[in-house]
Amino acid sequence: MAKEDFKITPWKVTGEVNYKKLIRQFGTEKIPDSILSKLKKAHPLLRRGVYFSHREFDVWLKDAESRKKVSILTGRGPSEKMHLGHLVPFLAAKSLQDLYKCNIYIPISEDEKFFVNPALSYKDAKKFADDNILDLIALDFKPRKTFIMKDFSYPPLYNWAAQIAKLITYSEVKAIFGLKPENNIGWSFYPAVQAAHILLPQFLEGPHKTLVPVGIDQDPFIRLTRDIASHSSIKFQKPAAIHAKFIPGLKGSTKMSATDEEETNLIYLSDNEKTVEHKIKKYAFSGGKDTLEEHRKLGGNPEVDISYQYLRMLFEPDDKKLQKIHDDYKSGKLLTSELKEILIKKINSFLKDHQRKRKRAERQIKRFVYSD
Amino acid sequence: MAKEDFKITPWKVTGEVNYKKLIRQFGTEKIPDSILSKLKKAHPLLRRGVYFSHREFDVWLKDAESRKKVSILTGRGPSEKMHLGHLVPFLAAKSLQDLYKCNIYIPISEDEKFFVNPALSYKDAKKFADDNILDLIALDFKPRKTFIMKDFSYPPLYNWAAQIAKLITYSEVKAIFGLKPENNIGWSFYPAVQAAHILLPQFLEGPHKTLVPVGIDQDPFIRLTRDIASHSSIKFQKPAAIHAKFIPGLKGSTKMSATDEEETNLIYLSDNEKTVEHKIKKYAFSGGKDTLEEHRKLGGNPEVDISYQYLRMLFEPDDKKLQKIHDDYKSGKLLTSELKEILIKKINSFLKDHQRKRKRAERQIKRFVYSD
Repeated sequence: MAKEDFKITPWKVTGEVNYKKLIRQFGTEKIPDSILSKLKKAHPLLRRGVYFSHREFDVWLKDAESRKKVSILTGRGPSEKMHLGHLVPFLAAKSLQDLYKCNIYIPISEDEKFFVNPALSYKDAKKFADDNILDLIALDFKPRKTFIMKDFSYPPLYNWAAQIAKLITYSEVKAIFGLKPENNIGWSFYPAVQAAHILLPQFLEGPHKTLVPVGIDQDPFIRLTRDIASHSSIKFQKPAAIHAKFIPGLKGSTKMSATDEEETNLIYLSDNEKTVEHKIKKYAFSGGKDTLEEHRKLGGNPEVDISYQYLRMLFEPDDKKLQKIHDDYKSGKLLTSELKEILIKKINSFLKDHQRKRKRAERQIKRFVYSD
Repeated sequence: MAKEDFKITPWKVTGEVNYKKLIRQFGTEKIPDSILSKLKKAHPLLRRGVYFSHREFDVWLKDAESRKKVSILTGRGPSEKMHLGHLVPFLAAKSLQDLYKCNIYIPISEDEKFFVNPALSYKDAKKFADDNILDLIALDFKPRKTFIMKDFSYPPLYNWAAQIAKLITYSEVKAIFGLKPENNIGWSFYPAVQAAHILLPQFLEGPHKTLVPVGIDQDPFIRLTRDIASHSSIKFQKPAAIHAKFIPGLKGSTKMSATDEEETNLIYLSDNEKTVEHKIKKYAFSGGKDTLEEHRKLGGNPEVDISYQYLRMLFEPDDKKLQKIHDDYKSGKLLTSELKEILIKKINSFLKDHQRKRKRAERQIKRFVYSD
């Protein structure tokens, strides 16, 4: 497949993604230096260009800085088990919550997964939601400022989705999301549910600016919701958004996705130390040279090295330490095996902590999750 | 429009309906004498052929007679105010509840009206629901055996509809209901909600036979739900149904509908005595002759006379009295003005009682209507 031959829908990504082209195609804006300069204390994902594109992030920041009400919204379509790539929007949201002390809303879209995946039962869709919620709570969100709701256990949702559904024709969802007539009517209704999610903070707290950290593939939902937000029957503010690039899988593929990649391409939050070590050593794509001699002489390529990229995106917040790893790897001083060892330690330290907090989260559910 | 040129969807009826043809077209069965013989104490609507077609009514009756669990389900798409024609399924349901002591479920589909009617606001859709519910409670349903739920205030509804939605493609709703791509995605989702209504007694009480009294135009929902009911992910019994002919408006048109007919064609449940008298005298289509002399000599035609038909369908339960009115009118002994006087008295007596009970219903809402 040629480099330009990529295709993106909210449910499937194929080919090598050209992000510059996406910004033009979707009509979003590159996150400028003027914004980046405000994010020096934010999570690496925000500082180092994983979040690369936005809609009205500047407006949201201005409101946040002038102490106007702002909120963050980021949802999750629950899956059997979560992997590192799934954490991206939540780590960004958490970081911005810490910086700006605002409420975070996390709708869990069991319904979406149920509609889109023919093999997924209603029971399992709900089970996955309950499972994934523990991983989210484990990320140290603020209890009184973080609200998790499950689509199948949140009574106002259908009413809000209905009000939005009236404003969207089937032609539109067909055009925007590439839906086909043989898809089920739950799926074609779902964009209204997703828009209700994005407007949920405003349904609950009245009109204000909400920021939605999403993968760039989800932007069609943002565009649709921005169109609807200001309709005379709704009268909300257009939601702002920041768009992330895809986090590569271990083997270096575009998107870390469990749908079309195998177990060996992903680090799951439930993986144990040995599994992590094995996966990184065996599968993490290396930018190093084939022989020790060559590597010492010519150096490695951190740009394509998955271990380095994971450190950059997720696991080495210290810019100086990261720069040293970068330079040492590039010069050949740091070997692939040594680089992998650094990452393995970082991931295992993170997962040990995460798994402990996930255990603790079982007792914290009521503080975070809506129940009637 | 030629007699055969009628067109029926659940939201619009045009032309002169040929009921025999509909039975063939929809694949239902004529209600046979073997069933009619069991309904001698039932409401005139059931005894006198307004309910003319069925699906598995015989099976439902057999279960009811052998004291197996059975239920009745009939919903209402709420409108600004109810008229006599709206009462048909509820009078049939009430009569069968009295005969067989079973539970009745009445879902109120504010959402359907909201999706289908572009001018209807969310607020008004909900207001109409609350209004119409008072008219339903006023019909003397048994409190502990009658359950009314509003789509916008009944949390489990979305979950049930979602489970059903997964089994229905957009192609199917397009084919069955004649939906167009420019219709909104709430509307195309609604058939799943309607199927959830029809299966609601089984979602709540487990598998059993439910009888659904409906206008024949609603049969596509019944067929769809029967197909879904036995799916491996649902495992319910196929609902049974009885189908009513359309109750004519005062002027003798096919269906007593507020959508495409004017105020003067309908008797509203809120009409006062003078209004009823005026409407019947001025608008009720007469089968009588043009002059008194002619009428005395040739007699009237009760088959097309709206006043007689209203007495037959709704207001004169006594077969002997009805027969006498029929014969006297046909012979010319009974004048149109006298026939109308009989009907006016019957309607006004009914409405006086109804309006008193509706007032009382305001205090009974909690005994009938689900609230969380």
